[in-house]
Amino acid sequence: MQNTAIIRIHCPDQPGIVSRVTNFISTHNGNILFLDQHTDRAEKRFFMRVEWDLDGFAIDANSIEEVFTRAIAEPMEMVWTLNFSSQIPRMAIFVSRASHCLYDLLARYSAGELNVEIPLIISNHKDLEIVAKQFDIPYYHLPLTKENKAETEAEQIRLCSEYKVDFIVLARYMQILSPEFNAQYPDRIINIHHSFLPAFAGAKPYHAAHSRGVKLIGATGHYVTSDLDAGPIIEQDVVKISHHDTVKSLVQKGKDVEKMVLSRAVQAHIERKTLVYKNKTIIFA
Amino acid sequence: MQNTAIIRIHCPDQPGIVSRVTNFISTHNGNILFLDQHTDRAEKRFFMRVEWDLDGFAIDANSIEEVFTRAIAEPMEMVWTLNFSSQIPRMAIFVSRASHCLYDLLARYSAGELNVEIPLIISNHKDLEIVAKQFDIPYYHLPLTKENKAETEAEQIRLCSEYKVDFIVLARYMQILSPEFNAQYPDRIINIHHSFLPAFAGAKPYHAAHSRGVKLIGATGHYVTSDLDAGPIIEQDVVKISHHDTVKSLVQKGKDVEKMVLSRAVQAHIERKTLVYKNKTIIFA
Amino acid sequence: MQNTAIIRIHCPDQPGIVSRVTNFISTHNGNILFLDQHTDRAEKRFFMRVEWDLDGFAIDANSIEEVFTRAIAEPMEMVWTLNFSSQIPRMAIFVSRASHCLYDLLARYSAGELNVEIPLIISNHKDLEIVAKQFDIPYYHLPLTKENKAETEAEQIRLCSEYKVDFIVLARYMQILSPEFNAQYPDRIINIHHSFLPAFAGAKPYHAAHSRGVKLIGATGHYVTSDLDAGPIIEQDVVKISHHDTVKSLVQKGKDVEKMVLSRAVQAHIERKTLVYKNKTIIFA
Amino acid sequence: MQNTAIIRIHCPDQPGIVSRVTNFISTHNGNILFLDQHTDRAEKRFFMRVEWDLDGFAIDANSIEEVFTRAIAEPMEMVWTLNFSSQIPRMAIFVSRASHCLYDLLARYSAGELNVEIPLIISNHKDLEIVAKQFDIPYYHLPLTKENKAETEAEQIRLCSEYKVDFIVLARYMQILSPEFNAQYPDRIINIHHSFLPAFAGAKPYHAAHSRGVKLIGATGHYVTSDLDAGPIIEQDVVKISHHDTVKSLVQKGKDVEKMVLSRAVQAHIERKTLVYKNKTIIFA
Repeated sequence: MQNTAIIRIHCPDQPGIVSRVTNFISTHNGNILFLDQHTDRAEKRFFMRVEWDLDGFAIDANSIEEVFTRAIAEPMEMVWTLNFSSQIPRMAIFVSRASHCLYDLLARYSAGELNVEIPLIISNHKDLEIVAKQFDIPYYHLPLTKENKAETEAEQIRLCSEYKVDFIVLARYMQILSPEFNAQYPDRIINIHHSFLPAFAGAKPYHAAHSRGVKLIGATGHYVTSDLDAGPIIEQDVVKISHHDTVKSLVQKGKDVEKMVLSRAVQAHIERKTLVYKNKTIIFA
Repeated sequence: MQNTAIIRIHCPDQPGIVSRVTNFISTHNGNILFLDQHTDRAEKRFFMRVEWDLDGFAIDANSIEEVFTRAIAEPMEMVWTLNFSSQIPRMAIFVSRASHCLYDLLARYSAGELNVEIPLIISNHKDLEIVAKQFDIPYYHLPLTKENKAETEAEQIRLCSEYKVDFIVLARYMQILSPEFNAQYPDRIINIHHSFLPAFAGAKPYHAAHSRGVKLIGATGHYVTSDLDAGPIIEQDVVKISHHDTVKSLVQKGKDVEKMVLSRAVQAHIERKTLVYKNKTIIFA
Repeated sequence: MQNTAIIRIHCPDQPGIVSRVTNFISTHNGNILFLDQHTDRAEKRFFMRVEWDLDGFAIDANSIEEVFTRAIAEPMEMVWTLNFSSQIPRMAIFVSRASHCLYDLLARYSAGELNVEIPLIISNHKDLEIVAKQFDIPYYHLPLTKENKAETEAEQIRLCSEYKVDFIVLARYMQILSPEFNAQYPDRIINIHHSFLPAFAGAKPYHAAHSRGVKLIGATGHYVTSDLDAGPIIEQDVVKISHHDTVKSLVQKGKDVEKMVLSRAVQAHIERKTLVYKNKTIIFA
Repeated sequence: MQNTAIIRIHCPDQPGIVSRVTNFISTHNGNILFLDQHTDRAEKRFFMRVEWDLDGFAIDANSIEEVFTRAIAEPMEMVWTLNFSSQIPRMAIFVSRASHCLYDLLARYSAGELNVEIPLIISNHKDLEIVAKQFDIPYYHLPLTKENKAETEAEQIRLCSEYKVDFIVLARYMQILSPEFNAQYPDRIINIHHSFLPAFAGAKPYHAAHSRGVKLIGATGHYVTSDLDAGPIIEQDVVKISHHDTVKSLVQKGKDVEKMVLSRAVQAHIERKTLVYKNKTIIFA
């Protein structure tokens, strides 16, 4: 497999950014594989993702950060990250009782479609231990009560640290993480909310959708912030419904859109195609 | 063209409803063309629409109401309406400045796709008078201010009455009708709201959508009630957007989904396929 | 769980069908739960599905067929089937190497979303035996060559018979069944084809789609007939693509639409909502 | 309104393309507004669209072509085009009898959404003259018979030449243009075909779709080549249908998807976002 470098950038909009970044790569014999950029004119902010082949690149991988910082990032006031395709991100999955999102992620994972490691699954229930066993992934059952929330989160964080977790996917984990927990993984916790946000934020969105009589329901994959269901949106989709639908059939139809939206959001994150700026996402091509 | 009778019913759920209604039609030599029914088990309520050919029907059209009431509707405690396909509904269109919904309705109308009469267009601006002229439809420019709202609405109602208007379409009419106005046309005013309600109710939904960073925008066709943007939803749809979209491009993309959603909602109303119950709609097949 | 009877009918269009069928149910104290009908005016053919609660029904379940035949089906020249919700259909899954459709079906099955038994999985490859093991379902590896096709199919049929299989799902089974095999299961073999048929029938549809430069790809769930990829269509869907897509990325994007379309088609079949007439399907609500 | 230059390029894939093109613009004080590129690895071909503000650009607009050719296009073996946003393209519309696509284009045009001039409409029928009059656009009725096809096409070409037409939109023009006609406007005739090509190419696609029993119908906007319905596809979309649909209702539902797809294809062409290569299109962002 090709070893590539991926740089994601945002900086004040100014002339010559693309030119300088692509020059940097070209003059060091890097072959650009993907390049996508975006200018937010209202914010006067420039965004860019560039991925290039490291084979034959004149700068040693370990020195890219330093060289690029000095040559380009600092003078252009860039906020930026550097990743290598050889670094496989490590993803923890948090679940409660519903299996559809977990199965969809694990089926993709076991088919080699997600370039990720899944070192552990954490749940506040025992129900899905059997799924974890099917895929031979360690499963930690950490029951949650109002009383033990702080300790349980401490244990969750300890496990994620022990397993060197890079990011966390809440695959229908029906619990609200504390601001302290979220602060450990800024822009690195992905949640699937079972409505097209901002409609029906909070609990029981399908009940609310049924009660309101909407003609479509949806799902939203987003980064978690301390503001409930208000974090940066990565992906959304909807499905048509009708007056025939009951809350039960909405829950059922919603499962399909939930799992597809979550898997697409996770895939974008794994491929380092997301960038968060001011509570919104740029999703690079 | 075939002359048909259309009955829309709702009543307490009970055995034998379909059987009695279809018997009534069959035994009087009526040939059923369309039948759709729905049972809301939570509400214990039954809904039905049946349309049959009046050619050869044994009961005179003028007597159907009386006979059906006595034979079926009263004993089964039905709330019901009777319409004839020969009654072409008369639709007033209210607009402000944006032309896309108006053009879409009028293009369908002039192609014979909407089985409706459009006796007049009312606007608080002069901008779209030229469109009305293109299609040779009387246009009333009634400027609106905070001060003259009551008089203007009185004049709007007088015009609708003079032109024997059956229902009103707010085709991007950027004004809020008073509860008194709405009360004149219960379940007979259709509005297009430029968001997937209940998200972004109220003013400037595209600004709000852009600010929230959603990945899709939508439109909602609904009956107007005195509760702003909270009336029974007839039709909704969405379109995907991205971080590239500005408020301006959202407005532009939104136009397409607005006009399609509104035209579909109007079509369903004209074909007598809608039924309102407890702030929700049944949309019959 | 409620025990219900389900009747699917087609017959020459004639007055009074709905009335007679619903009368039959009502007068024997049957409570109708679902009713959907369709008239094909060009074919002068009437189609209907009705489901009612057997609790308190005056006719014994074993006698319904006989009584309904005499009273209604024969006089109205109906082609019809009777099923009971208590009969759980038994579904064999045939696969080759791709796991996405198999996982999607098994994940739904294990979550209790498919009211079906899955007694066995048959494959011409060993690859997915591990998946079958995860879900504890017998897996038969029957390698296929040009030479052994007849014997292999005989063995497949023997296994399906031994396991009392009602219908077969080809979940990306990359082999063509012989007409003799198909004749054993008329309207009871569901295939997923990886294109929006009739476009790109036959082998390698994603290569063909890429070569043609289409802007969307799709999938089609259909009943298998002896005419390759030409059987009655149950369900279709598409996904947008762009010039960025390679054959490889089409294959990847296609997986999502394939698995959703197949699962929906299978669900419709299990719920006895499909009816085949003249190489087309009626999909009842 | 901003005056911008737009360059569309394709050339053999090679290192440093983006860098050299963006350098060229930056070093001459051009501010890049949009940049999108694509590499087709199988074809080893690079594609790019870049748009920049001419305000303050150091090279005179009239000299850009020469300078860019010498400095970049020739050495890199580019096939390329240069456009200026100040050049408003001139679009002829060809129609037959159906008005929906024409109205949709003209409604957008009169609302200022299409940055285009429409100097004339040509038809083989008189039906839509009234629409042309509504929008005050010259309408030429050129009846077509087998006998007069060559002369009529000559007259069509003469008119397009007289009115300085840049490209032609076949807005449900139900005639096949001769290869000679097509040769006059390579990649500059846009047709809307009423199916999701390559399914149902040729005449009467809705009849064919109904006969096949598909569950969705579509429309395809494509450039016209001498190969009927086989030219490069710009845009496609579909809409769900069911067994309830007749050929007539398919025609009706199809109109909505036809007009949307055509208008989007036309918009992409007007904005110079399309590029044809080997019978496929690149649609730049």
